Amino acid sequence: MTVEATIIEMAKAAKTSSARMARSATKTKNAALLRMAELLLQRKSALRDENQKDLVLARESGLSAAMIDRLTLTDATVAAMAAGLKEVAALADPVGNLSASWTRPNGLQVARMRIPLGVIGMIYESRPNVTIDAAGLCLKAGNSVILRGGSEALHSNQALAAVIAQALEETGLPAAAAQVVPVRERAAVTALLQQEEQIDLIIPRGGEGLIRFVVANSRIPVLKHYKGVCHVYVDRDAELDMAADICLNAKVQRPGVCNAMETLLVHQAAADRFLPAMARQFESAGVQLRGCELTRGILPSIAAASEEDWPAEFLDLILAVKIVPSMEAAIAHMAAYGSQHTEAIVTADYRRSRRFVREVDASVVLVNASTRFNDGGELGLGAEIGISTSKLHAFGPMGINELTTSKFVVFGDGQVRQ
Amino acid sequence: MTVEATIIEMAKAAKTSSARMARSATKTKNAALLRMAELLLQRKSALRDENQKDLVLARESGLSAAMIDRLTLTDATVAAMAAGLKEVAALADPVGNLSASWTRPNGLQVARMRIPLGVIGMIYESRPNVTIDAAGLCLKAGNSVILRGGSEALHSNQALAAVIAQALEETGLPAAAAQVVPVRERAAVTALLQQEEQIDLIIPRGGEGLIRFVVANSRIPVLKHYKGVCHVYVDRDAELDMAADICLNAKVQRPGVCNAMETLLVHQAAADRFLPAMARQFESAGVQLRGCELTRGILPSIAAASEEDWPAEFLDLILAVKIVPSMEAAIAHMAAYGSQHTEAIVTADYRRSRRFVREVDASVVLVNASTRFNDGGELGLGAEIGISTSKLHAFGPMGINELTTSKFVVFGDGQVRQ
Repeated sequence: MTVEATIIEMAKAAKTSSARMARSATKTKNAALLRMAELLLQRKSALRDENQKDLVLARESGLSAAMIDRLTLTDATVAAMAAGLKEVAALADPVGNLSASWTRPNGLQVARMRIPLGVIGMIYESRPNVTIDAAGLCLKAGNSVILRGGSEALHSNQALAAVIAQALEETGLPAAAAQVVPVRERAAVTALLQQEEQIDLIIPRGGEGLIRFVVANSRIPVLKHYKGVCHVYVDRDAELDMAADICLNAKVQRPGVCNAMETLLVHQAAADRFLPAMARQFESAGVQLRGCELTRGILPSIAAASEEDWPAEFLDLILAVKIVPSMEAAIAHMAAYGSQHTEAIVTADYRRSRRFVREVDASVVLVNASTRFNDGGELGLGAEIGISTSKLHAFGPMGINELTTSKFVVFGDGQVRQ
Repeated sequence: MTVEATIIEMAKAAKTSSARMARSATKTKNAALLRMAELLLQRKSALRDENQKDLVLARESGLSAAMIDRLTLTDATVAAMAAGLKEVAALADPVGNLSASWTRPNGLQVARMRIPLGVIGMIYESRPNVTIDAAGLCLKAGNSVILRGGSEALHSNQALAAVIAQALEETGLPAAAAQVVPVRERAAVTALLQQEEQIDLIIPRGGEGLIRFVVANSRIPVLKHYKGVCHVYVDRDAELDMAADICLNAKVQRPGVCNAMETLLVHQAAADRFLPAMARQFESAGVQLRGCELTRGILPSIAAASEEDWPAEFLDLILAVKIVPSMEAAIAHMAAYGSQHTEAIVTADYRRSRRFVREVDASVVLVNASTRFNDGGELGLGAEIGISTSKLHAFGPMGINELTTSKFVVFGDGQVRQ
């Protein structure tokens, strides 16, 4: 069978299964997730054997140590996947929930009912745990899912797919509700992106190259996240100790992720008092600073920031620093160079806190808290399937609710339109 | 300037204006809409002069009488546009509303704030009133909008655009927040669909050909509605008078629209009692019936339905009729041939009403009411910008709320992530 024919068959099976998934009771879906968790733990040595095949090929093809690290399944990562499934099973099931209803003058009672999206296509790189995490969330929300992981993780992903399929079948759910694309060719991705009649949503997770490829080639709606160029703005009246704690956390607690701070903006009236001590803390943490001219007037030993540093997503212990004359200038800088991902202010001023929250255009806007809180778990959504920086359907972390939509339901007594 | 350069410049101006629109006070936006309404009425003879130029060209190029009718501006249509703007001004402004907030264990207070989408591209055919209706809703929701109407309405749309721009400027809002594409070339549409950095959403309104062209050529998310193949299912225990009223209304009250019934499904246990009297009512109303074999056993004089009739959107006084053995068969028929637009059941049975509402996959599902209620105004959303039959972001009629999205806002006291 050609790659395209394989994908078409998978998409049709996913669509057929999605109707059964949409009607499945919460307890059935939960039973399947819990059974997956059990099977993962029972089969962990077999899973590691399959993973080993991927690792051998990865070493032969010269993958970087970092990539190999992400690819490796350990007992701990398998246990984490199982624990993740139990968490998703414990989440409230949104499907079938009715919104508060309203009644029309003619007596029609109208409400919105939450329903699954249908079929979701996940396209992702390296980490095999995404296979389990994404399948768990999509299935719990009553969807079918087609999973296309990195070709370097194919053995691992197929072994995980077998676990998922077995758990689905044992609990009376269709095995085709979660399928892993079984071929390495990139043509499989292109074919997947053309199945607009069967697939309702594509979620790509990975580098900007992958995501741009998906957007450029898809006729299906895509929930995407290009990059996180996040700022903290330290306002003129900020409590400086609080500001230092937040900035340090935002930069160094996990510098390689999308919600880490990449540029620090400081009000000029706070810069003299704030920057020298802050710079010492960053230096102790190994952070390399790159400052604007005014910043280098206060911190003469740091490197000069270039124009390329302002829109940069360093994902590393590097921080651009700029002194601004006002909050308005900080907001304008965010609008010009940010990525609508996460923006924070540290301030003691009530009016400016309100304006910042209203006017900053980002998926998560924080007052007096670290940018690192842009995360589904941290914001109370439960497990997340990604972070959207485009505004349609979802903006910000996407939890189980964002894997559903709603239809209108109307209860009448024979009403007709006049 | 080339067509593409014109579009790029318009898109950039729209994007710049959108930041100002997003910050505009409700009273300012309302003042602009009310001023537009005034100016429309003041200028109605000038508007009709411009419209006349379009009509002359339309007749020269041999447009159909129906198309010319849709293109024509009368005093009544101008008055209706002005009245529509007043209605939109009276709608509650969703922008800035905060959802109920929740508090995390670390004390962070989290909520969602409703925000405009940004820049909306409307691509539509013939009717010039869409220019005003769409601009009113988009602006009220704090967005910028680029309007691309049918080339046959260009003079009318440019005259309406001048009214909109004047009202925006007089109330201190950016004129570029609502722009009409000033060229006839179709290349303008293609160029518009490529401005993904500036435009957040495309809404096409028109025939299936237009919509498929937009979906195939857009890198920007599209809210679309291909067609409405709507069903009424008359259940075995339905009250037959109620069923007849609903079916007649769904078919004949306005047969040319997307929420009219196209196929009637009748439970076999009700068919003998229901269909003869129903057929007489349809006959009096001029409806041509096309039945399945079982239906023709009861109504021998009607035409036989062919396989092409089941997925057909007649938009006319034609109705396909099928007798089904069960509600499950009716739901399966809707899934196979419907368009996820509007589906209704007429029933007296509690359990089946609940199952129908849960299991039918359509943007609006009704019990004991006419399909004609799938409409933003009828369902209480206020004016609508269209009906979405795709599930992302909006499913069903789209009102002002669907022209917004939400961001997360987080209020802290110095929290950092552990």
